[in-house]
Amino acid sequence: MEHIRTPKVENVRLIDRTAPRKATVGTLYLSATHTIFVENNPETRRETWVLHSMVASVERPPTTLSGSHLVVHTKNFQVVQLLIPQERDAMDVQASLARLSRPEKYSELYCLSINPNANKEEREESWSFLDLQADYRRMGVPNNLWVSTPANSEYRVCDTYPSELFVPKSATPAVIVGSSKFRSRGRLPVLTYFHQDTLAAICRCSQPLSGFSARSQEDEQMLEAIMKSNPGSDYIYVVDTRPKLNAMANRAAGKGYENEDHYTNIKLQFIGIENIHVMRNSQQKIIDVGELKTPSMGDFLWGLESSGWLKHIKAVLDTGVFIAKAVAEEGISVVVHCSDGWDRTAQACSVASVLLEPYYRTMKGLMLLIERDWVSFGHKFSHRYNHLEGDPKEVSPVIDQFLECVWQLSEQFPCAFEFNERFLVQLHRHVYSCQYGNFLGNSQKERRDMGLRERTHSLWPQLWKDRAQYANPLYRADHTQTQGMLRPNTTPYCFKMWKGMYNRVEKCAPPRQKPTDLLTAVREETQQLEEELTNHQEVAPGGTAHPGTKQGIQTRSHGPSTSPPQDYLPSQGGPLGPAMTLPLGPLKGPGPDPDDLSSACSDMESGVADLSSRSSSGGEDSKDPDEAVYCAA
Amino acid sequence: MEHIRTPKVENVRLIDRTAPRKATVGTLYLSATHTIFVENNPETRRETWVLHSMVASVERPPTTLSGSHLVVHTKNFQVVQLLIPQERDAMDVQASLARLSRPEKYSELYCLSINPNANKEEREESWSFLDLQADYRRMGVPNNLWVSTPANSEYRVCDTYPSELFVPKSATPAVIVGSSKFRSRGRLPVLTYFHQDTLAAICRCSQPLSGFSARSQEDEQMLEAIMKSNPGSDYIYVVDTRPKLNAMANRAAGKGYENEDHYTNIKLQFIGIENIHVMRNSQQKIIDVGELKTPSMGDFLWGLESSGWLKHIKAVLDTGVFIAKAVAEEGISVVVHCSDGWDRTAQACSVASVLLEPYYRTMKGLMLLIERDWVSFGHKFSHRYNHLEGDPKEVSPVIDQFLECVWQLSEQFPCAFEFNERFLVQLHRHVYSCQYGNFLGNSQKERRDMGLRERTHSLWPQLWKDRAQYANPLYRADHTQTQGMLRPNTTPYCFKMWKGMYNRVEKCAPPRQKPTDLLTAVREETQQLEEELTNHQEVAPGGTAHPGTKQGIQTRSHGPSTSPPQDYLPSQGGPLGPAMTLPLGPLKGPGPDPDDLSSACSDMESGVADLSSRSSSGGEDSKDPDEAVYCAA
Repeated sequence: MEHIRTPKVENVRLIDRTAPRKATVGTLYLSATHTIFVENNPETRRETWVLHSMVASVERPPTTLSGSHLVVHTKNFQVVQLLIPQERDAMDVQASLARLSRPEKYSELYCLSINPNANKEEREESWSFLDLQADYRRMGVPNNLWVSTPANSEYRVCDTYPSELFVPKSATPAVIVGSSKFRSRGRLPVLTYFHQDTLAAICRCSQPLSGFSARSQEDEQMLEAIMKSNPGSDYIYVVDTRPKLNAMANRAAGKGYENEDHYTNIKLQFIGIENIHVMRNSQQKIIDVGELKTPSMGDFLWGLESSGWLKHIKAVLDTGVFIAKAVAEEGISVVVHCSDGWDRTAQACSVASVLLEPYYRTMKGLMLLIERDWVSFGHKFSHRYNHLEGDPKEVSPVIDQFLECVWQLSEQFPCAFEFNERFLVQLHRHVYSCQYGNFLGNSQKERRDMGLRERTHSLWPQLWKDRAQYANPLYRADHTQTQGMLRPNTTPYCFKMWKGMYNRVEKCAPPRQKPTDLLTAVREETQQLEEELTNHQEVAPGGTAHPGTKQGIQTRSHGPSTSPPQDYLPSQGGPLGPAMTLPLGPLKGPGPDPDDLSSACSDMESGVADLSSRSSSGGEDSKDPDEAVYCAA
Repeated sequence: MEHIRTPKVENVRLIDRTAPRKATVGTLYLSATHTIFVENNPETRRETWVLHSMVASVERPPTTLSGSHLVVHTKNFQVVQLLIPQERDAMDVQASLARLSRPEKYSELYCLSINPNANKEEREESWSFLDLQADYRRMGVPNNLWVSTPANSEYRVCDTYPSELFVPKSATPAVIVGSSKFRSRGRLPVLTYFHQDTLAAICRCSQPLSGFSARSQEDEQMLEAIMKSNPGSDYIYVVDTRPKLNAMANRAAGKGYENEDHYTNIKLQFIGIENIHVMRNSQQKIIDVGELKTPSMGDFLWGLESSGWLKHIKAVLDTGVFIAKAVAEEGISVVVHCSDGWDRTAQACSVASVLLEPYYRTMKGLMLLIERDWVSFGHKFSHRYNHLEGDPKEVSPVIDQFLECVWQLSEQFPCAFEFNERFLVQLHRHVYSCQYGNFLGNSQKERRDMGLRERTHSLWPQLWKDRAQYANPLYRADHTQTQGMLRPNTTPYCFKMWKGMYNRVEKCAPPRQKPTDLLTAVREETQQLEEELTNHQEVAPGGTAHPGTKQGIQTRSHGPSTSPPQDYLPSQGGPLGPAMTLPLGPLKGPGPDPDDLSSACSDMESGVADLSSRSSSGGEDSKDPDEAVYCAA
């Protein structure tokens, strides 16, 4: 609490960014975890909650006659603008937020400020929700081609890799260790996806330490073993996802790419995804485009083009398409790498998996895919998403791009995905929010060393619990295309700005029509009719439908399936006001999502939250808290 | 037939533009109305038909060793590329097509080359399908505020207006005639839409002949009468849809805009839709963008921006929004004009009607709206869409922009429109094709003088007959938003390139998933269940469903509901080949749509038609001929 310079400021104005003259007057409260604005209007007492870990920046433009403005940008691209009468208060709030939003150690993070034993059983259960090994078994691994190696069980071969690795059956321990020594950060080629129809595999690694002439017999043997693990083929693709120039530049530092003279039977392919610095700058530009207040068509299109963002999304998707086609159509195994093999490689492999495998287009499948290609394989979440105050050059929207590729695909194949846009936006938010322990740290080993399973909850069961609101009613598992590999059209005409991510504010009051909601309604009607028909066929002859069969509809609520923990919510309009019930110490469990701007935003007009309407748990009039956020899509 | 220099060329190659090395060899036939390419492959004998009136241009790049290329661009933005072995033949085909695609007189047009008495009854019926007067009655006109005037019954007041006009009850004949004399081309202010809830009206006219100082008491009285016809208001808006600079420039020619000092109680509003020349140039640029062969993301976005096309679409939509809000929210009547009041005015009034009135968002409603605001009010179809060889400066995609506004709205309100994109694309095609008499000529009087009702068929009943394939399964007439006025978000983020219009060619083989098709299937399932349930409730007790109840599904075929007239089709693979059965003289009736590239294109890979599969009439395996065209959307 020592970072809160002022716990409460009165007569603050929350500015409606789409109509700057419109503002609500209220009180601003700062807690350890949230900044909360509570409207004065005694009838509505509307509240806007901003989770501190979601705060990206707080600007304070020059003070005006009416006071000091604070412009809070969140990590999921929303903006809250406050007008504080006294400059002194504004400076205090800004300084407090600057510190609170930049924790210096993990223990300051939300998910670690919770008493881990309050819901011990639930916590333990939450971590067993996903089973990565079961997913490998689902795809037929281990088998007589690919085996599990204990080499990394104590993270001695590679400390950023998972403890369990799958390698070709013919790869000896010497080959494993030797290959690892010849790869940047020890990230040797191992299996990430196995295609049961063609027996082709996707393997991933980091760049070889080849420099201008170095070579490693073991590494060459490893790639040979990978080729031989695919009986039907006599070569493999090595996909270097970097631009060739970047790969060549790495040779000067003793790294680089595979020399085709040394590695027999490989076809080397450069694809050209730019590095994390280019992507960081590009994303800032698309964020700026999304935040333009009254852009002309030219401003918008020029900004979109000059951001380069969609070009990068296309590059990632094209890489995934290349890999997926090699595996499914040619039946050729692919070894994918970039420099360290934890950014572009994670993107390329996971996009390829989504294209290849219908299962990864379900909610649970996508969770598993993220758990495998990102979490277990050492994507540096804490560095990339700035969980702790750190090197800004390490920050980059790598998983943002993967999620956007999935979204662009879902726009092109609306029936192929079990989940809707909301699911992707929610995943994105949680990568940044640190409300759950899943994405803390930079590797499996770090998470084990921190004891996160003992100290935090896992996100996945919570998302699963709320799956009703993430369901895509257009999803059709039995659709021919849904079953097979997706072959997207990746001409530029098929890409568009992700409005639901980068331009969520809506100017006009009524929410857009959502065809998916409509389809859900039709589906329910169908189900009801089916039930009525079944009843008719089962029960004794009778002329009218059985009224009891309508129950099927009520269980399919679209609202959030859970309410926030009651002890976490301010007593609604009570005499002491919300400040008195704010969490001042560790809590019993992470709230599902009552916590940051994105989920609390249920008011189209002002972009602020109406939390009061959400404290009733699942009642008929409890609104979908994400309505305002998602209807802009 | 004198224009056909060569009726048949053998060994022609039809080039796949998306994969130039892929080509089909076949024979090219030229008929009076179509160019037909028939594949040699005896198994498929695939045919590609191009209606001559749909040909926009035929380019012949320099002859190469393999022969002469011909690149045919159609008026609905498709491209057919042929390779002809002999340069001489290519020149003949080009010259023939150049002439055949530019008829010099109406009688050369397709719809007038048909024997009008072959289907006399059907023809007569076809023209009574729509009843414009009934639509005025539907909106409550005439009433005690607005009356029908006989002043123009013989087109003496205004020869480009309809014969029946609705004017304020208080407007005397002197005011009508006087106002007409003070308006460009006599196009006086008359009613086009009446809003029953607010009693506000939309009136349309051309610019006043005000110059720098001229005025007309009658014209001022006319606007005063319009204001008084709306009892609840004390002013009207005059919306000049032109940029103010353009309007000012017109004063030098004795035209211009209303002087607010002379017209009391008007609020003059300029909106700034550009003129037909700007629009023509802009559309050519967006067509070029859509035809780029392998554009980079930058090429695409740069091209989209620099075409200015979406900026213009936004301007038209914004104008409609302004008018609709004035009428529905403020309850203020609006007088709309541009220069002559037949281009931008038609756009603005019809977009406003679509926004205001749910009925105009149905198939029949949109037909009526086009019939009223475009056909009856003298939009110059033949000039704008180049039906006859004429002044290229008169050509402009005015109705294209209206149809695109409707499409952009349908993307934002997917449940508000009874029709799908296919309907709009088909409307667009028929504006250009001249297969039906609806859009010939430039005014009602011209059409009457040509006797088109006696000599041609009307398009509307044909579209209505095929309505199953134009239905939007997401349409929900009872949706709150569907019922009321549409309030679109018109920030630039909400506009996108109309891929289904400007970039229809698909590179990859499988058609995209169409959520709407899926919903149609679910709806059918629902209907079937409903029927089964009804049967259960009606029939004697029994355990199983009545098989006969499944019939409901079969009547809801998605294929074209009609087959082309048999005498019009080549005998499939017959000994004489298609050339022998081509229409060489007047036909009995216009074929539904076997005729131009867009409807014949059913092959994803090559973009060519497979007509053979369509000669079976409505059989189970008859494909939707538009599948390939629309799946790109």
